[in-house]
Amino acid sequence: MTEPLVERTAAKEPLFERVAVIGLGLIGSSLARRALQSGTIAREVVAYDASPSVRARVVELGIAHRVAETVADAVQGADCVVLCVPVGAMGVVAAELIPHMQPGAILTDVGSTKQSVIREIEPLLRPDLHFVPAHPLAGTEYSGPDAGFSTLFEGRWTLLTPLEGSDPEATARVAGLWQLCGAMTREMDAPHHDKALAIVSHLPHLLAFTICGTADDLEGESRNEVLQFAASGFRDFTRIAASDPVMWRDVFLNNREALLEMLARFTEDAQAMARAIRWGDEAFIVDRIERGRRIRRSLIEIKQA
Amino acid sequence: MTEPLVERTAAKEPLFERVAVIGLGLIGSSLARRALQSGTIAREVVAYDASPSVRARVVELGIAHRVAETVADAVQGADCVVLCVPVGAMGVVAAELIPHMQPGAILTDVGSTKQSVIREIEPLLRPDLHFVPAHPLAGTEYSGPDAGFSTLFEGRWTLLTPLEGSDPEATARVAGLWQLCGAMTREMDAPHHDKALAIVSHLPHLLAFTICGTADDLEGESRNEVLQFAASGFRDFTRIAASDPVMWRDVFLNNREALLEMLARFTEDAQAMARAIRWGDEAFIVDRIERGRRIRRSLIEIKQA
Repeated sequence: MTEPLVERTAAKEPLFERVAVIGLGLIGSSLARRALQSGTIAREVVAYDASPSVRARVVELGIAHRVAETVADAVQGADCVVLCVPVGAMGVVAAELIPHMQPGAILTDVGSTKQSVIREIEPLLRPDLHFVPAHPLAGTEYSGPDAGFSTLFEGRWTLLTPLEGSDPEATARVAGLWQLCGAMTREMDAPHHDKALAIVSHLPHLLAFTICGTADDLEGESRNEVLQFAASGFRDFTRIAASDPVMWRDVFLNNREALLEMLARFTEDAQAMARAIRWGDEAFIVDRIERGRRIRRSLIEIKQA
Repeated sequence: MTEPLVERTAAKEPLFERVAVIGLGLIGSSLARRALQSGTIAREVVAYDASPSVRARVVELGIAHRVAETVADAVQGADCVVLCVPVGAMGVVAAELIPHMQPGAILTDVGSTKQSVIREIEPLLRPDLHFVPAHPLAGTEYSGPDAGFSTLFEGRWTLLTPLEGSDPEATARVAGLWQLCGAMTREMDAPHHDKALAIVSHLPHLLAFTICGTADDLEGESRNEVLQFAASGFRDFTRIAASDPVMWRDVFLNNREALLEMLARFTEDAQAMARAIRWGDEAFIVDRIERGRRIRRSLIEIKQA
């Protein structure tokens, strides 16, 4: 874990002069709110979203000092640019704004897949910019600028996946940004990040979307009953299944290998359970259930549940 | 939905003279607590559990008027006997207590699978007894007599699956029992019950146990990371995975056909999603995610989430 930038915050000098938040969905609007409120993150918070209606809404919400009308205007004069767009859009948006960034500025992102974002952005980089890929592990099932809130990142992890040979000072400043949002930070390499997220986040979302689809395919009365009796277990799966479709489509497509590998393992395990049920292998079934309890107990012990 | 037994409760005459609760786990101990507190359910609540330590604990907790030392003693003189044991134990326990029941008494149960319970108990029945299979759709991830609480059934469904030709008055009284616990009641046939529960409850539990097992198999650092970063989605699956192993082993084995059928559908759907991810079929992926959102929205609309 990176140490908090104690001196800076103690001196009340903001970490950045101007932060440009690009994309004002759940994450971007939460970051903007936090930066605007804290005063220690940036002297000025500039927002830009490709959607005119989102820009108008951000003006109404008053969650940035200024809403730029173009991405070029948003990033000019910013010493930190945070890409908060779906991972499938990272390359296009980065290509558009990199030419307008000021020398020495930091470019970072919040994408849920890190190898794909690096693959897209690295070839576009200028030598006078610092690129620090990051991923705040925070979110809710809601999306859009109204869904954000300034405490979203508190007590949550932000993972940083700096490139080899990149400036440690730039990485430390991005870590500081998230720490000032209340997050804990940790560095790891991008392939490791993508594998870890495949099992803790991407596979659970895939399973949640899938079981909702399976239930949705049931006919008439059966489908209604799923809704009525959902509290018996099904409901636990539906919260994360309400998440943003474009974001998750992009995550699945951009962490394909790790996700399909984890789904393959899961499917083998589910088939082994099915076989044990079919043949009445009580010991196997109890062993699998006991593992579930063990994992839950471990979560409670480390205060993650 | 059966109408509440308004006259009885208005007159403050208890619905039963003596209710015997057999098995004091989460469900049995919640029912005992409720019956003891309400006064309108039974004049006397007698408890029995096969485990001496559970019996001792029930005495300490004071959640029944009397704790019987034998199952025969528990059911003698009871006009309602409620079997609250794992579905795999229903047949054995019923065989033991049926000879000691008083003529005209009602035998009911709380098992999560109804066809298997009926299959086991029906051949053991005496013509002077009424058997009304039931299933309160309530529970938490905790188990044992300490885990119960008197409001567990409030606002939840209890499904009744009466046998063909059985006495409607007996069914109405069992419905009344659950209504006095705060539950809503509905009648359906047992095969329909088992199919509905396979998708709303049994499959979600199977998936939750399985993903916990898949995560538990990861080595060293990866396994630790699952725990640390669980809030990203994985955690939603672990609550129900903490449920009682013997109860769930029995549920899986006793609703085998319906559960394996639902798991097969789910697996087809998951494989279709995997294929769409592998081949980049964006429209398919978005369609499946949209369904998840729709199901969640429907749940919120009918106030089940």
